[in-house]
Amino acid sequence: MSRVAVILSGCGVFDGSEIHEATATLLALDRADADVTIAAPAGPQMHVIDHQAGAPVEGESRDIMVESARIARGPVGNIADLAADDFDVVFLPGGFGAAKNLCTFAVAGADCDVNPSVAAFVKDMHDKGKWIAAMCIAPALVAKILGADKPVKLTIGTDGDTAAAVNATGAEHVDAAVDQVVVDTDHRIATTPAYMLAGRISEVFDGIDKLVQQVLKLC
Amino acid sequence: MSRVAVILSGCGVFDGSEIHEATATLLALDRADADVTIAAPAGPQMHVIDHQAGAPVEGESRDIMVESARIARGPVGNIADLAADDFDVVFLPGGFGAAKNLCTFAVAGADCDVNPSVAAFVKDMHDKGKWIAAMCIAPALVAKILGADKPVKLTIGTDGDTAAAVNATGAEHVDAAVDQVVVDTDHRIATTPAYMLAGRISEVFDGIDKLVQQVLKLC
Repeated sequence: MSRVAVILSGCGVFDGSEIHEATATLLALDRADADVTIAAPAGPQMHVIDHQAGAPVEGESRDIMVESARIARGPVGNIADLAADDFDVVFLPGGFGAAKNLCTFAVAGADCDVNPSVAAFVKDMHDKGKWIAAMCIAPALVAKILGADKPVKLTIGTDGDTAAAVNATGAEHVDAAVDQVVVDTDHRIATTPAYMLAGRISEVFDGIDKLVQQVLKLC
Repeated sequence: MSRVAVILSGCGVFDGSEIHEATATLLALDRADADVTIAAPAGPQMHVIDHQAGAPVEGESRDIMVESARIARGPVGNIADLAADDFDVVFLPGGFGAAKNLCTFAVAGADCDVNPSVAAFVKDMHDKGKWIAAMCIAPALVAKILGADKPVKLTIGTDGDTAAAVNATGAEHVDAAVDQVVVDTDHRIATTPAYMLAGRISEVFDGIDKLVQQVLKLC
């Protein structure tokens, strides 16, 4: 049974984890009988976005772990408490939370900061030979954490500006279609575009199911 | 192409729509190429529940439509603006939001109040011969809206107290397993237990996929 960490970043595409991607990840992992631990970093989200109006809510603050618990249907772990030795693979769903709360790629591109607990866990997973699977914009976070030291290959789909920012971290962006999984076997990283390209929810579920199945076979 | 309304009630199992159930509904409808309109009632949620702590957050208010938009990835319609003539079927995912925000069944049982816009739309759908599909605790809402006039058959799984409260509305509760769909062909109502009984997310997706496929064939 694969031991899997799923790292969430809130609850909602514009300020947290993309809900359909996170749910698709949990579904595919359940179908594979994986042993899943859901965790998130402690602290406030960068933004609270009114998803009906599409605009930030001034003066409101929401906690990343507390909002992530909505997707998990109960308490999530603090990523600072996770030990890489306990896991075979970490999955990083997308949504702006991955690029606002786990790191600041959404506002600072390749010069972004990464949440220290997230950086430490992902780097430790990599250093210990574990797999890293990321979807949508979350591969940019992986690029920022590992790209400066290693030419990791990954995809955020086909968006030129985002790909250029990924390349500026030192990582190597590879264009991919919504139904493709890019696997960097040398560095044990697998990525798929999900909602960076998907026009419908079924494409997201199909791409993430493929990602989960491929990675669980490899790790 | 079936014209489908999906009615949400917030975002999160303890104070809104159950996220996995709502997502499973949208996925199955997309795979069936349905024409989907997502809507919710206007107004504040009954509660804001901290899903990490499992307790109400005093003094915080969240809007049902605004939170539902997180699951929809953008603006949802106001159910008060929907016309039954425009739809073939309405889907009602569960979560406490269905029993706190669409009606007050969670706190008042068979004596609960129903949000007037929700009651009007669901009743109009029924009166015009359209199908109603509900999952998890949402069948209790359908029972309250229709049960006093008609002996509608539906399920919330096997919980005795909840079934008794459903029967007290005048509806007829039928025990069902997590992989079953109860179909009342006389009254065009289909229900499945989802997280009222499911122990894992894959059971929820399988049950809701079956519900969607059966209902779209019938309507």
